[in-house]
Amino acid sequence: MSFDRLQEKIIAKKNPTVAGLDARIEYVPEHIRKACFAEYGVGLKGACEAIYQFNVGLMDALCDIVPAVKPQAAYYENLGWQGMEMLERTIAYAKSKGLFVIADIKRGDIGSTATAYAEGWLSGADIEGQTFKSFDADCVTLNGYMGSDSILPFLNAAKGEDKCAFVLVKTSNPGSGELQDIKTADGQTIYQVMGQLNEQIAAGTEGKYGFTMAGAVTGATYPEQIQNLRTLLPRTFFLVPGYGAQGGTAEDVKYAFNEKGHGAIVNSSRGIMCAWKKTGNNGLDFGEAARNAAIAMRDDIARFVTIQ
Amino acid sequence: MSFDRLQEKIIAKKNPTVAGLDARIEYVPEHIRKACFAEYGVGLKGACEAIYQFNVGLMDALCDIVPAVKPQAAYYENLGWQGMEMLERTIAYAKSKGLFVIADIKRGDIGSTATAYAEGWLSGADIEGQTFKSFDADCVTLNGYMGSDSILPFLNAAKGEDKCAFVLVKTSNPGSGELQDIKTADGQTIYQVMGQLNEQIAAGTEGKYGFTMAGAVTGATYPEQIQNLRTLLPRTFFLVPGYGAQGGTAEDVKYAFNEKGHGAIVNSSRGIMCAWKKTGNNGLDFGEAARNAAIAMRDDIARFVTIQ
Repeated sequence: MSFDRLQEKIIAKKNPTVAGLDARIEYVPEHIRKACFAEYGVGLKGACEAIYQFNVGLMDALCDIVPAVKPQAAYYENLGWQGMEMLERTIAYAKSKGLFVIADIKRGDIGSTATAYAEGWLSGADIEGQTFKSFDADCVTLNGYMGSDSILPFLNAAKGEDKCAFVLVKTSNPGSGELQDIKTADGQTIYQVMGQLNEQIAAGTEGKYGFTMAGAVTGATYPEQIQNLRTLLPRTFFLVPGYGAQGGTAEDVKYAFNEKGHGAIVNSSRGIMCAWKKTGNNGLDFGEAARNAAIAMRDDIARFVTIQ
Repeated sequence: MSFDRLQEKIIAKKNPTVAGLDARIEYVPEHIRKACFAEYGVGLKGACEAIYQFNVGLMDALCDIVPAVKPQAAYYENLGWQGMEMLERTIAYAKSKGLFVIADIKRGDIGSTATAYAEGWLSGADIEGQTFKSFDADCVTLNGYMGSDSILPFLNAAKGEDKCAFVLVKTSNPGSGELQDIKTADGQTIYQVMGQLNEQIAAGTEGKYGFTMAGAVTGATYPEQIQNLRTLLPRTFFLVPGYGAQGGTAEDVKYAFNEKGHGAIVNSSRGIMCAWKKTGNNGLDFGEAARNAAIAMRDDIARFVTIQ
């Protein structure tokens, strides 16, 4: 089961964090931008190449510190098909560096449509009996508003590939409560219902660390809710966004882990990617700045979480 | 406001239906598949070209009958970046034929991430002060599980472009009730809460037909719920999937329209795309078969809905 692969990488690096690769062109240091626009012109192609070089530099600097990266699909779709081509290259490069890849796509659809997504992102498309892989991530994020038939096709695709998924449960944004915090007639909240539904859907897929193939997204900005969900969902692996820029602290995220320090991974995107903006070197040291930020984050969380 | 553009196309063609462009390679007639695999090889490129030729043939046959097409992003992502490149061409071709394009992407994310999606799909990316459009659809579908901050960035991007969006409210699939039908402590269902939240978010954006920029997806397979939602959400335009293959009938979908026959569009994908499978001509007549199916669907709905 694939959360085993992620948990083992976390244990090996003693670091339960994932670096987001969410670059807008403004986040890329000037020397890279200028060189790429000079070579490819100011446009989609130049922007894609600049972001790709930035991603590669970040991964080179981070690959012995963090176990995983999380490219956010929006920043690649933003640049059209050329962005998607660059995303495929980014994912391939990450895997060549031993990084576990969580594609943050938040897809949610049903039946044959969900299968089409799952093939594109995880298991590969079937063309005349042959399998052709495209994005080929290790893991995806999903939105379960449509119900279990929007999650199961991904688990089926992931199973044969030793891959996995995270389903949105309690998200980190200010508006997350508008739907997710609503009380049901049974006295639960919608995010609790979603989390339990998700754990049930994946029941029986537990790996050696005890987690099913269907993890949950639980925002660092809501530590009480994380604490509640950790108890409610003992077999669910958590992806925790919202540390750093959004306000979540290391003390807040400690509740996402079980008593062995397992079962969660904390994301930081801008805090690592844009660390160069704080060193006063105009981005020439972006790799070193990202590496130092990732080490600081690892050590910050280690104050509260001991991984066995 | 952009539902005006769609409503006017519907009135002009006296046809409140949208043709889904959801082709898996298996749906493409053999003569096109064989020619494309011969020219480009059996693989992603060949599959993309076959689906593109199929899409173009369908749109040529349908463009004077239906007001809109709805490409489902999953079937293009299924084929990786080459599928996305082909989707850009498909959308551009649709617009050249005067068709309104609803990109069925069901995206849902927040803040700067939602803005990145909205730029990619609707308004274009900003690179060094210039705007570069990629997918450039007229309308997208969205998932609002994360709250209003996952919808507003799309409405902001759509506003300057006279575009619009549909948010999932009550979907057509068997599992839709698992979350959407849950009763709240106030005695409502979650899909009612979602629908009302969505209408409030877009309040003030009503166009000349009285509909806001944020429509709702309401499945034809749940006619009672559509009837309830039509009353509850008088200012919301409905996208109605589930007619035909999924079991929804023309009598079921009539409840989606207001007393003027406005405010809804009904989708059919396989019923139109795969009509050639029922004529016994091995797909050589796929355009004519799709056209006849679209005319039959238009006339079927016209038995129950009169558009003023």
